[in-house]
Amino acid sequence: MGIDIEGYLAENKRLVDEALQSYLESGSPGQTKLREAMRYSALAGGKRLRPILMIASCDAVGGEREKVLPVACALEMIHTYSLVHDDLPSMDDDALRRGIPTNHKVYGEATAILAGDALLTDAFGLIVNKGREAGIDSGVLCEVVGDISSAAGSSGMIEGQAVDLLLTDTEEVSLGDVERMHMLKTGAMITVAVRTGGRIGGSNGNDLKRLASYGSSIGLAFQIIDDLLDIDGEGDLGKERGGDARHGKSTYPEIAGIETSKRKAAELTRNAILQLRDFDGRAEPLREIARYLGCRTF
Amino acid sequence: MGIDIEGYLAENKRLVDEALQSYLESGSPGQTKLREAMRYSALAGGKRLRPILMIASCDAVGGEREKVLPVACALEMIHTYSLVHDDLPSMDDDALRRGIPTNHKVYGEATAILAGDALLTDAFGLIVNKGREAGIDSGVLCEVVGDISSAAGSSGMIEGQAVDLLLTDTEEVSLGDVERMHMLKTGAMITVAVRTGGRIGGSNGNDLKRLASYGSSIGLAFQIIDDLLDIDGEGDLGKERGGDARHGKSTYPEIAGIETSKRKAAELTRNAILQLRDFDGRAEPLREIARYLGCRTF
Repeated sequence: MGIDIEGYLAENKRLVDEALQSYLESGSPGQTKLREAMRYSALAGGKRLRPILMIASCDAVGGEREKVLPVACALEMIHTYSLVHDDLPSMDDDALRRGIPTNHKVYGEATAILAGDALLTDAFGLIVNKGREAGIDSGVLCEVVGDISSAAGSSGMIEGQAVDLLLTDTEEVSLGDVERMHMLKTGAMITVAVRTGGRIGGSNGNDLKRLASYGSSIGLAFQIIDDLLDIDGEGDLGKERGGDARHGKSTYPEIAGIETSKRKAAELTRNAILQLRDFDGRAEPLREIARYLGCRTF
Repeated sequence: MGIDIEGYLAENKRLVDEALQSYLESGSPGQTKLREAMRYSALAGGKRLRPILMIASCDAVGGEREKVLPVACALEMIHTYSLVHDDLPSMDDDALRRGIPTNHKVYGEATAILAGDALLTDAFGLIVNKGREAGIDSGVLCEVVGDISSAAGSSGMIEGQAVDLLLTDTEEVSLGDVERMHMLKTGAMITVAVRTGGRIGGSNGNDLKRLASYGSSIGLAFQIIDDLLDIDGEGDLGKERGGDARHGKSTYPEIAGIETSKRKAAELTRNAILQLRDFDGRAEPLREIARYLGCRTF
């Protein structure tokens, strides 16, 4: 059942990059640098983890990749907006992202805020407009808009960022606090990526639950490993190492210790794969992505 | 055919205020001040012009008010987010809005950015979730999400704000520049309010075009009159008068002169009402709103 996971990731990253580029280059150029600033961050590379997970989840239930692609790109636009806003001076005040200067360093703070707003706003239009062109049923599209709004909004990612800011420089942060923050800030969007792929692929209630549970497990594992890499990793992160400590952020490994964190990440990875036990060979990419993420160098 | 327009506006403002309050108070309270900050700006009063226009437009084509109300509230949430972000230090740096301190003055810049992001994100979820509960067809909801995303996004309101920032402190701004900026920044959202009311009310192609044309005319008239009031009005604006000049903004009256601006606003108002000539008595509130906006004290 072995698949070439690196090939699979590269092929789907290329699909997402090309589609994103075509969506972001269509439309009138406008009078301002707004669209340039949107493209700057959205086309700056990145692993494309969320859209690839959505595609892999659609593959896992035998859905059509052409249908899911525009929605996958919209989710990546929402992820990108969140990075642009998180990097702002009043938030994490970061100068580097994905190896290049952050949006506000290049375009100024006002344009960076607007570029983030526009990536978020345009993403919802992309879902319904390109989703219908691709043949997704309107009822399914409404579910998808509701799911993604919920994952990205005030009960999901944005609350996660607010909790992150609250915990920053706070004494006595518990492991539960950090876990809840990660589940909201990163987990919700990764979970909705996987759930949405299944939904567009035509999956039913119980399978959707299992896919969501897979997503929520790898979401937390991903974040714990990210935090481990920030302390002690090898290779190029595209940003300065040690940023968490410098920003006064409490991380999972800092509170639980490095060994416990590694064990937790491995356990979450196993649990994610276990959720897919009733899926057939078409779910192999999802399983391999979990293994691949669980084995990142640290 | 006379209707009590002030009564109509007050009644619908109350409907919108109550519905908004109930939407924004549902859900878990969260660990942070995010939801409090969202409510602070969304429930701070305001004329509720956009949602009332959407309701009046639905009335004009004989639609059901219960169906349009959640979408009307979502549009007001998007309008509110745009005000919260426009007031930020890196944008217009305003201290007062609707008579009270701006969001970032109360909650800090980071939370204000996040509260804006969350109002925008949650609005799209509100449209599809409450819209379906209210019985709007999924296909219509997809059209509505597409229309609102387009009006609010990188080809609409956000580009308008970017143009506004570009024109600020620029020498030699033309009347055409200011007009285009207003059409994007204010006009697109007012137009989509009217169009969406018609769409949800079950209106067809040509009627929708006329409604949109009505919206675009009153949108520009509204902005010209706002600029006149900022220079020379009476009564409480809820913000300091003379803000445009202080911010180095070129306004319609500054370039065209006060008398020409008044004539232009009157002409736009007449044109708006003319668009409704084939509509029956149910469009009387829309006509009266145009007259009412055209006669604000200046």
